Amino acid sequence: MKIRYNVKKEDCNKIKEIVELTNFFNEKEVDVAVELIKEHIAKGVESGYHFVFSEVGEKIIGYTCYGPIACTTSSYDIYWIVVNPDYQGKGIGKKLLMETESLILKAGGSRSYIETSCRLQYNKTRAFYERCGYNLASVLKDFYDKGDDKATYCKILET
Amino acid sequence: MKIRYNVKKEDCNKIKEIVELTNFFNEKEVDVAVELIKEHIAKGVESGYHFVFSEVGEKIIGYTCYGPIACTTSSYDIYWIVVNPDYQGKGIGKKLLMETESLILKAGGSRSYIETSCRLQYNKTRAFYERCGYNLASVLKDFYDKGDDKATYCKILET
Repeated sequence: MKIRYNVKKEDCNKIKEIVELTNFFNEKEVDVAVELIKEHIAKGVESGYHFVFSEVGEKIIGYTCYGPIACTTSSYDIYWIVVNPDYQGKGIGKKLLMETESLILKAGGSRSYIETSCRLQYNKTRAFYERCGYNLASVLKDFYDKGDDKATYCKILET
Repeated sequence: MKIRYNVKKEDCNKIKEIVELTNFFNEKEVDVAVELIKEHIAKGVESGYHFVFSEVGEKIIGYTCYGPIACTTSSYDIYWIVVNPDYQGKGIGKKLLMETESLILKAGGSRSYIETSCRLQYNKTRAFYERCGYNLASVLKDFYDKGDDKATYCKILET
């Protein structure tokens, strides 16, 4: 398994595939995932979307997408963290997350935020963030939909 | 005073001017305000950024920028609400906000979110949102900077 940071044109289809494979996201969410990598391809780092890929050969088995939050001095959002279901439970998500946090720190970031749904489906996801040192910072009721609250997790990054 | 919804190319400079005039926003924040209208000019409504302008003659005396929040069924963000200092205290901000909420409702939205700083400088701004029916939904500590928390206000929109 190797880590890659640069974005290639062919990553668009690969991202679409891996996000769909999880069976976790609806069509619109998949579109958003693809949109962010398209933005990076069009505008480079100016897009504000950065990527960390985990690969086996040419295959992307996991990735994160993150970036600085506009109008903040050192807060970052981790927009996406996805691992191919065949490779889950092997610590790849944790490795990707730690690598992402390390890059945020190097870029001058001090806080990392992750937003996720409070739905039952995301119980494991939220437990994963908590294991990785994230604290629940806020809950916005019915944010995504009726009965679907948004949880915002935060981790203070330290060198 | 008239209300306008369509975006013209010359609005870029006008937005820059009015945002700067408030003496409220730093250079990077002004850039973000201009970036959002540029996105609209480049991509139209697909940009996800919509505008309501308040004008006297050809002069923009206030505006809001709002849009649907990706991956939500009916939540909207109001990104910017700005009134020229010479025209503040005349109910223009409230009128713009109500017009924006009415457009969000018509577009199928049910919740309107506004984020702002908890700094002293924004006391009047936060009081304004509260007078307009917004409730404090969450506070993220040190979000913008050390000692500069983010407040998120929410209003449930009803026909």
